[in-house]
Amino acid sequence: MASTKDDSADSVQFFEGVEKLLEIWFTSNNAKNRQLGDLRQISRQKWESLLKIVRCEIISFCRNDQVDAYVLSESSMFLSKRRLILKTCGTTTPLQCLEPLLKLVEQYTGFDEVEDLFYSRKNYKRPELQISPHHAFEEEVALLDTYFPDGEAYCLGSIDTDCWYLYTLNREKPLQEKAEPDQTLEILMTHLDPDVMAIFTRDMCSSAAEATQKSGIDKLIPNMIIDDFLFEPCGYSMNGISKSGSYMTIHITPEPEFSYVSFESNIPEASYEEIIRRVLNTFKPGKFVVTIFANKESIAASCPRELEQNDYLNSSEDWLRTDAQYCRFKNYDLTCAFYSRFPS
Amino acid sequence: MASTKDDSADSVQFFEGVEKLLEIWFTSNNAKNRQLGDLRQISRQKWESLLKIVRCEIISFCRNDQVDAYVLSESSMFLSKRRLILKTCGTTTPLQCLEPLLKLVEQYTGFDEVEDLFYSRKNYKRPELQISPHHAFEEEVALLDTYFPDGEAYCLGSIDTDCWYLYTLNREKPLQEKAEPDQTLEILMTHLDPDVMAIFTRDMCSSAAEATQKSGIDKLIPNMIIDDFLFEPCGYSMNGISKSGSYMTIHITPEPEFSYVSFESNIPEASYEEIIRRVLNTFKPGKFVVTIFANKESIAASCPRELEQNDYLNSSEDWLRTDAQYCRFKNYDLTCAFYSRFPS
Repeated sequence: MASTKDDSADSVQFFEGVEKLLEIWFTSNNAKNRQLGDLRQISRQKWESLLKIVRCEIISFCRNDQVDAYVLSESSMFLSKRRLILKTCGTTTPLQCLEPLLKLVEQYTGFDEVEDLFYSRKNYKRPELQISPHHAFEEEVALLDTYFPDGEAYCLGSIDTDCWYLYTLNREKPLQEKAEPDQTLEILMTHLDPDVMAIFTRDMCSSAAEATQKSGIDKLIPNMIIDDFLFEPCGYSMNGISKSGSYMTIHITPEPEFSYVSFESNIPEASYEEIIRRVLNTFKPGKFVVTIFANKESIAASCPRELEQNDYLNSSEDWLRTDAQYCRFKNYDLTCAFYSRFPS
Repeated sequence: MASTKDDSADSVQFFEGVEKLLEIWFTSNNAKNRQLGDLRQISRQKWESLLKIVRCEIISFCRNDQVDAYVLSESSMFLSKRRLILKTCGTTTPLQCLEPLLKLVEQYTGFDEVEDLFYSRKNYKRPELQISPHHAFEEEVALLDTYFPDGEAYCLGSIDTDCWYLYTLNREKPLQEKAEPDQTLEILMTHLDPDVMAIFTRDMCSSAAEATQKSGIDKLIPNMIIDDFLFEPCGYSMNGISKSGSYMTIHITPEPEFSYVSFESNIPEASYEEIIRRVLNTFKPGKFVVTIFANKESIAASCPRELEQNDYLNSSEDWLRTDAQYCRFKNYDLTCAFYSRFPS
């Protein structure tokens, strides 16, 4: 987000909006640790040290009983009792922090096991600018495999053009454990409407709150406490958290040459049609990919299939679905669908 | 298939059973060429020259009004009016023949356009033994992209472990053209029952016909004229063709160290459950991947979804589905599902 104009030339310095998204669910074989452990027991100072390895820092914070939400210089981090979400854009290196992260969590929470892990990202616009191991998905997978010998890697969509990578453990859940409902909606958008993107610049708005309101971000999901940040000279990040523990997060790289917006939320819904429509109407992308994850315990359990089958975005509108893949993993169903605006 | 024992040592020389499968549908903008062109107008001698580039040769042939079916030293080739299927295993190089193939077809049939193309394969057991451009899917894709700038590449299943690669054009079909029904079932099997595999050796059977009958291959799909071949000292290939123009083809690498069987057919069925069961009961694999392609015009149009949803193989039996992906392309639906035998 912290993209800056290159003063020495008339060209705009490139910024990679595409995030690396790491979600880890921790647990322990020790019942006491399982009960008492909490990622929020780890001090802010410890997290700050960890984030140095990732090459980003905390710039804002809000919390409620359910979740701690950090706005980072490059995207966001969410901590709840046993779930970490670390989403970072630019040339950050989240996988470099994996080993110290696992040690930190074990030392301060007693969580000595990774129950589930999801590492995902869209293809970068400029992979050659990334820092190891993030140049190529193969390299990221090789690193993850050293920690998780049973990890599995997937490429959804069309390789090297529009695709979305996922690394996950895809383990059978132990029978004694009752899974908690979980679902994630993500919409990753490119080629956005320049008039909308202009809102997320200091030229147009003097504060993050103004950009949030003017764009309609505050109306996307009701009852969210919003922590937003408007970068200098442009770029925008926000976290939203609700009393029920749900989160939403939006990150915007507004430069027309490489505009990118990501929307993500775990709000439980029986259908995501309305939210997806609102997001698209808010940001007006030229291309986007929608991913919906849901486990069987979730109220959204049928949403991945609904997205794949009914294709409600295709029916009456401007969108051409160029690709859709539906995957059944052991604990989650997933649909990943790619859309382009119809040539007018 | 033409695997041989290494006499100099007690070890068995490795043979890559996994095939490269190239299917091309030709057409022309010229109505007369479209009407009069036929791939079977090309002489056998021309095909033999072309297959030299692929590093294989014709060893048997049968035909009917609908289709010419060749058994090759490494798998099979089928020619109908405008569809070529070239399936070759071992270290063959089918993509090296692409340019001369397109020229040959244009010169002798007037088909100057590729209407649709599918290049697919399972991951090799030993990719390092392949010849360029077949070492890696990326390399194959790079070559295909030079001919088809709108080609799209997919990796279904878990990257680098059990996966199935596909390159296709995924083009919008021109509205004026009425698509003909098309469907393909493929079952690629590994870790096969050694007692079944023993049938496909010269020790056990003195003729291909004996192996075909003893194994039950002759009962898999009724009313097929069978052209079969038993290799020395082991290995088996067969083509079957029916009056209606359907084909089936089976290729067997029986050595226990790297056993592999492929089954493929385009027989139109409203459900493939029965055929899949018969194939599995015949060969008894430890692991296999099923792919079903069907277009909207096919009687099998709902089969890809059926395979993905109902998972009839999972219900009462020995099979654990480890992965399944359902893809919607512009003209075809596809399911690719991976199975392992339950640990007993």
